[in-house]
Amino acid sequence: MLNLVILGAGNVATHLARAFLNAENLKLLQVYNRHPEPLASFKEIAATTTDISALKKADIYIIAIKDDVIPDVADKIPWQDGIMAHTSGSISIDALKKFKNRGVFYPLQTFSKERKIDFMEIPLCIEGNSKRNFQLLSDLGRQISNKIYAIDSQQRKSLHLSAVFVNNFSNHLYTLAAGICEEQKLPFEILKPLIKETAAKIEELPPRQAQTGPALRHDQKTIAAHLKMLKLAEEKIYSLLTQSIQKIHGEKL
Amino acid sequence: MLNLVILGAGNVATHLARAFLNAENLKLLQVYNRHPEPLASFKEIAATTTDISALKKADIYIIAIKDDVIPDVADKIPWQDGIMAHTSGSISIDALKKFKNRGVFYPLQTFSKERKIDFMEIPLCIEGNSKRNFQLLSDLGRQISNKIYAIDSQQRKSLHLSAVFVNNFSNHLYTLAAGICEEQKLPFEILKPLIKETAAKIEELPPRQAQTGPALRHDQKTIAAHLKMLKLAEEKIYSLLTQSIQKIHGEKL
Repeated sequence: MLNLVILGAGNVATHLARAFLNAENLKLLQVYNRHPEPLASFKEIAATTTDISALKKADIYIIAIKDDVIPDVADKIPWQDGIMAHTSGSISIDALKKFKNRGVFYPLQTFSKERKIDFMEIPLCIEGNSKRNFQLLSDLGRQISNKIYAIDSQQRKSLHLSAVFVNNFSNHLYTLAAGICEEQKLPFEILKPLIKETAAKIEELPPRQAQTGPALRHDQKTIAAHLKMLKLAEEKIYSLLTQSIQKIHGEKL
Repeated sequence: MLNLVILGAGNVATHLARAFLNAENLKLLQVYNRHPEPLASFKEIAATTTDISALKKADIYIIAIKDDVIPDVADKIPWQDGIMAHTSGSISIDALKKFKNRGVFYPLQTFSKERKIDFMEIPLCIEGNSKRNFQLLSDLGRQISNKIYAIDSQQRKSLHLSAVFVNNFSNHLYTLAAGICEEQKLPFEILKPLIKETAAKIEELPPRQAQTGPALRHDQKTIAAHLKMLKLAEEKIYSLLTQSIQKIHGEKL
């Protein structure tokens, strides 16, 4: 049985707590958060505290807080027992170097409070400052996910950057498309099956092979017509992505 | 019972033919294609021909060929009976103006030969040059899809442009992310759950509300670190999309 404490009460903390609750060999002892309000939803499943000096003894502490407050909170944690692991994609394991046992427990997924998600399918990127700590964090991970990866801090930064492309930027393209639809009084609804199929295709085809469209075909007539329809900001994005597609996929055959 | 002829033998023609085959009140009489090879896979389900002057009499002719050959093929179709409808997102209904009865039958989806797809979920964008022709094409559409939309040529152009953003450009972002992963010897596999969840989220949240990430948070430290990791072409795309997110979502609160 592993005893756990979570620091933080945001989206990642919420989803992790739910996943821990469903695992058999884990006990979530306590959830810490600086502000009391977000702790309300945790009260039924664990002890809660807003006093960092009142942290309980546990095997593993999961620090699921915003990147920029990690050093600050790490500073205030009063003792050195147990493994301290943060959940950030872009912060090095070294941010926790004051702790003898440290690691990273980064779930590569986008979380919203409203949406339930099958944690078993979420890739967990694990790093530890020793074989033992890596092993313990992996054991913890395997209780809530089928997808455990050993990822060092350098690789994790690249993964986080990749995640910005496939999540933040793709979602922004959906927003721009929604804007174009709105102008023509078209329901955004109509694009949803295409959005879902575009993402689903990667299961069968590498994205490079799945590429289609006027840029790939060097269809200058359609590209010119599209550019004319766009406002300056969107026009620049269209041009740059078109160039990038043509650069990566090479010359027209 | 509606009698149909398909002109073309590519991805759209293939998926349409399969869908027509499963419908009760449709009969696919014939498939025409200029080259004989692609017709092979249609031989079991309909008559085929490479001779455009040998088109059979039908109620509706679906012209599912590449945009730039539509005018050419339209020119060669020898008679005026039946409704002529093309399946293109970017070509006006006027490309078929030599025909008394004309329309558009545009399935808004990305098709690959390898992937089966539930046609019932594909939005069909219908246009007709008369109420009767619109009605007949809609009746045809309803036999193979639950999602029938009345879309005029102007709106359809905007939809097609939106589709480039959510499909071609999103897929290209996946390709760029795959490249970043490859450089760090990370399996692209690890990004797949995130890609799928990003797309799935639009069912519950408008993309504007689903936006997250360093650009939205005006997290300059992470943005600067990301830009440093990228090559020039990707750096430009990162900057431009970051600016666009910040422009659309307004100032940091």
